Amino acid sequence: MNSFGRFFRVHIFGESHGESVGICIDGCPAGLSLKVDDFLTDIERRKGGKQKGTTPRQESDLPIFKSGIFNDTTTGAPLTILFENNNTRSGDYQKQRAVPRPGHADFVAHQKFGGFEDYRGGGHFSGRLTVALVAAGVIAKKLLQQVSEKVGIHNSNDAVRQEISVVSHLVEIGGEKDIEKGLQRAIDAKDSIGGIVECRVNGLPWGLGEPFFDSVESVISHAVFSIPAIRGIEFGTGFAAARMFGTEHNDAIIDASGKTRTNHAGGVVGGISNGNELVFRIAVKPTSSTPKEQETLNWETGVVETFSVKGRHDLCIALRVPVVLEAVTAIVLADLMLITQNMPRIS
Amino acid sequence: MNSFGRFFRVHIFGESHGESVGICIDGCPAGLSLKVDDFLTDIERRKGGKQKGTTPRQESDLPIFKSGIFNDTTTGAPLTILFENNNTRSGDYQKQRAVPRPGHADFVAHQKFGGFEDYRGGGHFSGRLTVALVAAGVIAKKLLQQVSEKVGIHNSNDAVRQEISVVSHLVEIGGEKDIEKGLQRAIDAKDSIGGIVECRVNGLPWGLGEPFFDSVESVISHAVFSIPAIRGIEFGTGFAAARMFGTEHNDAIIDASGKTRTNHAGGVVGGISNGNELVFRIAVKPTSSTPKEQETLNWETGVVETFSVKGRHDLCIALRVPVVLEAVTAIVLADLMLITQNMPRIS
Amino acid sequence: MNSFGRFFRVHIFGESHGESVGICIDGCPAGLSLKVDDFLTDIERRKGGKQKGTTPRQESDLPIFKSGIFNDTTTGAPLTILFENNNTRSGDYQKQRAVPRPGHADFVAHQKFGGFEDYRGGGHFSGRLTVALVAAGVIAKKLLQQVSEKVGIHNSNDAVRQEISVVSHLVEIGGEKDIEKGLQRAIDAKDSIGGIVECRVNGLPWGLGEPFFDSVESVISHAVFSIPAIRGIEFGTGFAAARMFGTEHNDAIIDASGKTRTNHAGGVVGGISNGNELVFRIAVKPTSSTPKEQETLNWETGVVETFSVKGRHDLCIALRVPVVLEAVTAIVLADLMLITQNMPRIS
Amino acid sequence: MNSFGRFFRVHIFGESHGESVGICIDGCPAGLSLKVDDFLTDIERRKGGKQKGTTPRQESDLPIFKSGIFNDTTTGAPLTILFENNNTRSGDYQKQRAVPRPGHADFVAHQKFGGFEDYRGGGHFSGRLTVALVAAGVIAKKLLQQVSEKVGIHNSNDAVRQEISVVSHLVEIGGEKDIEKGLQRAIDAKDSIGGIVECRVNGLPWGLGEPFFDSVESVISHAVFSIPAIRGIEFGTGFAAARMFGTEHNDAIIDASGKTRTNHAGGVVGGISNGNELVFRIAVKPTSSTPKEQETLNWETGVVETFSVKGRHDLCIALRVPVVLEAVTAIVLADLMLITQNMPRIS
Repeated sequence: MNSFGRFFRVHIFGESHGESVGICIDGCPAGLSLKVDDFLTDIERRKGGKQKGTTPRQESDLPIFKSGIFNDTTTGAPLTILFENNNTRSGDYQKQRAVPRPGHADFVAHQKFGGFEDYRGGGHFSGRLTVALVAAGVIAKKLLQQVSEKVGIHNSNDAVRQEISVVSHLVEIGGEKDIEKGLQRAIDAKDSIGGIVECRVNGLPWGLGEPFFDSVESVISHAVFSIPAIRGIEFGTGFAAARMFGTEHNDAIIDASGKTRTNHAGGVVGGISNGNELVFRIAVKPTSSTPKEQETLNWETGVVETFSVKGRHDLCIALRVPVVLEAVTAIVLADLMLITQNMPRIS
Repeated sequence: MNSFGRFFRVHIFGESHGESVGICIDGCPAGLSLKVDDFLTDIERRKGGKQKGTTPRQESDLPIFKSGIFNDTTTGAPLTILFENNNTRSGDYQKQRAVPRPGHADFVAHQKFGGFEDYRGGGHFSGRLTVALVAAGVIAKKLLQQVSEKVGIHNSNDAVRQEISVVSHLVEIGGEKDIEKGLQRAIDAKDSIGGIVECRVNGLPWGLGEPFFDSVESVISHAVFSIPAIRGIEFGTGFAAARMFGTEHNDAIIDASGKTRTNHAGGVVGGISNGNELVFRIAVKPTSSTPKEQETLNWETGVVETFSVKGRHDLCIALRVPVVLEAVTAIVLADLMLITQNMPRIS
Repeated sequence: MNSFGRFFRVHIFGESHGESVGICIDGCPAGLSLKVDDFLTDIERRKGGKQKGTTPRQESDLPIFKSGIFNDTTTGAPLTILFENNNTRSGDYQKQRAVPRPGHADFVAHQKFGGFEDYRGGGHFSGRLTVALVAAGVIAKKLLQQVSEKVGIHNSNDAVRQEISVVSHLVEIGGEKDIEKGLQRAIDAKDSIGGIVECRVNGLPWGLGEPFFDSVESVISHAVFSIPAIRGIEFGTGFAAARMFGTEHNDAIIDASGKTRTNHAGGVVGGISNGNELVFRIAVKPTSSTPKEQETLNWETGVVETFSVKGRHDLCIALRVPVVLEAVTAIVLADLMLITQNMPRIS
Repeated sequence: MNSFGRFFRVHIFGESHGESVGICIDGCPAGLSLKVDDFLTDIERRKGGKQKGTTPRQESDLPIFKSGIFNDTTTGAPLTILFENNNTRSGDYQKQRAVPRPGHADFVAHQKFGGFEDYRGGGHFSGRLTVALVAAGVIAKKLLQQVSEKVGIHNSNDAVRQEISVVSHLVEIGGEKDIEKGLQRAIDAKDSIGGIVECRVNGLPWGLGEPFFDSVESVISHAVFSIPAIRGIEFGTGFAAARMFGTEHNDAIIDASGKTRTNHAGGVVGGISNGNELVFRIAVKPTSSTPKEQETLNWETGVVETFSVKGRHDLCIALRVPVVLEAVTAIVLADLMLITQNMPRIS
């Protein structure tokens, strides 16, 4: 299924070099103000061509509202947003039909869809679709604010309820915390490079998530691994927790709001948000399309051959991930907020 | 929701010190041979009390079939299995009602369920429920074998189809690859300790998973984070990929089956299984119940106080995780196999 | 799937002559008082042997709580209830293995499940499972009351909110409105007979249901057709509406609460509850197991042969349907109430 | 949710007088040939203005493919189709904002969506959206053919497998079997009128559907009640079954394919298709927008006032229902076919 969510339910569609990419959202409450302008900042953050290490391909990327919005406001009916594909050079790809690019989905797509897949630029398996995720994320972020304003929510940071903020940053490139330095390594090596992106959410109430299959970590990781190129996720201290003693790792609860002295848990205990800052990090692999020569099978000739990627690509795709990570996180949290609200406690 | 899966659909229920824990499985095909004996090996692997570092609490843990099995064979109707709780000492917990244990779900459960939660031994938030996961895993493993025998599946390891094997091992305790040594560190420190568990699946066909929200990584991580105490997951080279160049990380495809020269991707590209070995690792935090003294809030007095965990607990819960990880992995893969079979290619 | 509901999610399992039948409910809010006594009235109403025309088979039918209840109160964790099967005579059925009873699921079950189905007394395809529906209905009815007390609900009947009541009656047997008379026709004919059951819900707020696929009629009919022996459903004037003019059928809205002068719509317009009384009727076919001789195929001999149903059966199964219809209706409405609550209106 | 289906999953969106209506389909297998021409016949059948009793409003109604199709063939990726709204006269509706039309969703939409609903022409609550259902139905019908060709299916009509055909007819208008005569009654009365539509499916294999909540009747009725104006549904003999004896109603099985002598069950027993013809009928209410004067509340003045419907409307909406009924039936059956295929029988 290319759908996600139980209440704030997102359906993604489109291809890199097809007509359009887009999103259909079912379950967005009525009354949310929504204009094209609301999308521009996050869409701009996602765009390539603005910084060293990202692809020069640019789309105007203005959201086109097709349903669910009336008088600049959500109606409660399904909301559909398209992004047209204007700036495509399919010719780049058609020549290489029989040469599945390593690290890309070319081979598995061909097997899974029996040769009927749209192979141009990865087709449906394309980072291009993240513009639709970003659009859904813009709506989810607005929704989080509105929902937190309407209902009484509780968290450990303040007696007074605050706005929920979802913020991601690139924290490492190629093992370097100094991002410029890490990127320069890739430029010097004429090779693509990986990175680590962190997400922090403040103002989240306790009580989101379910004890077992829909733990907060379960639903966030489910959504996060839909972003292309992600290879790992860790919450709080994450993999470092595996090297710690219990007394080091446990977070002492220090007041009635659930605030803890440390936050090794990253804001989730027993699958449930505990009102502390939600913190997690993801590993982004190096862009599969590297400028260097590589080897792969030519499935027509049956021979492993050398090839070079043509086309325009990011040297470090991790540079463009933060806004996408914020988007999927906000999508998940908007859904959890709507779900949790509906669980009344009786008597 | 305490349910998981689209076709092979698992519903978990029960409490640590309640009547029972159990599982209801909807969508298990008819005709699968299933006897109590089939469960004993994996249930035994999960049990504490067998090795250093695990809890002395033991249950007989015999699966009791309540529906869906007739003449030692699945009928195609929903399958319900109970495990009774015989060996409980609830008195251990009732005294500490107002003292939420750090690292445990006591605080969030109390907030989320308004004080109505079964607080005895963590209630529904208990590792005890993993026995039900293990039982579902036994069925899923049998199903994987049968389904792979019945349908023509393809993978990169062999011209001849092989059995699907799902195998997990503890690969690190407290940062030590020598597991005995790592465990001794915890025993010496009189403290609990974390670890890393790896899972490898061989014989898996290409084509499982979906391009976006139901990528193989998405659904596996969703299920994995339902296991208590997991803090991170990484596929293939995982977090190390963030420090690699593209030419280092990309796996060259070397034959028509999709076999790759290296396997940094861990068997998944573009969210789809590629027929190579599926490899992933998870981080397990140190057991929250450590023998050492800790601090936490007493929500009746409002004072942060020192307390010690009574009761019987594992020093290193990671020791018991491998069979549970195999179980949830098999559950996910059984579901993906059933889903993928149903997607016929036309013409 | 043998599951139903988005929030108040019901999983049914069991077989007529197996170990047990039961229900697992996910999404029941915490804090609902629940004792064995709460179930007795509705379970008694469902039982055969109490009135002319129903089967003499009786079960003690006491609900056994296996999870999700603590101190006579729901905990918010999944709730499992079993009913043991004590009073079974499987021998009645085993002789007739190769003789699929007309009107029963014997033939389709055998085909669908490849001969692995539990064929004793219909196995999973048995009216016996409705005891589990009735149990879930008891919980749903309690939940409807509680939820309507906790949240501000609106309906057209009163400025003051009232309790939601779900009441079903048998309104016709064999075409007779005088039920005794209709039943006597069947007794005289020594044949089983059909009937019509009506359900009326008062106190329901406006706003439940969705415009398209999850209209109130969609979800109610979905659940209703899971009751064995149902052949039709109609809302409000139902099939009679097909013979009416628009001015006859339209219900004039006469006050700000949405109250209508007539109620031909049966309380649902555009798929959404409108706050007026919800009214629908269902057609129940005559019990398939009639005392009369019938013909059917013997699939071993390949010959169509005459046979008589042995065993204990209802002459008019419709007599036992009202409490089951109330149950599935309450299950649907409890789910819709939880769903609708969670849809905040913004600004 | 405005979504339907487990595998062939349909998401509907749009408004009567908004930008567009459309459909997003997830789970359509790759390799299905699909051109604009394939849609024209069914879209034409749905259009008004072609026959007496239907609205003169016409749309060009050409499907615009936005994703999921490449080289006139489905790719396996989500498939999005838009229909633009060109021929709208919103001015007709804006004046009547405070006057909820009887029989329409105006009142409930206003309450449910807090005044944010797109009220023009019913907005999302509009028969206009059925064009999207018809489009999905075209694809589902093609899929039924292809799937039945690819897999070995079994039904009772023939040793040789045949194509699955889904055919609906209007069988009654205003109580008249002579449709012209019934329609003339409405024209003479200057009032709208209801009707009954029947659907027959031949060539369907046995084994579709589930024993309880996803019985064939459950999922068909769920989908059918998403069509506006439907008030009832009955399978086989339907409501007449409630007036029959068991020996009259039971269908004797007469050969090994499951063929029955009569077909009172309408092709479904125990919730499962039995390989005989699937037959059901639905009741369509008279068009709510009748040319006659009616009364309703003006919610601004609080006074019940007389009003007349302006705009262009069908006298008998049932005339346009058959192709829509075929569409939703095909959608359901395509989904059931895909689901059932994936349930392998073991050993």
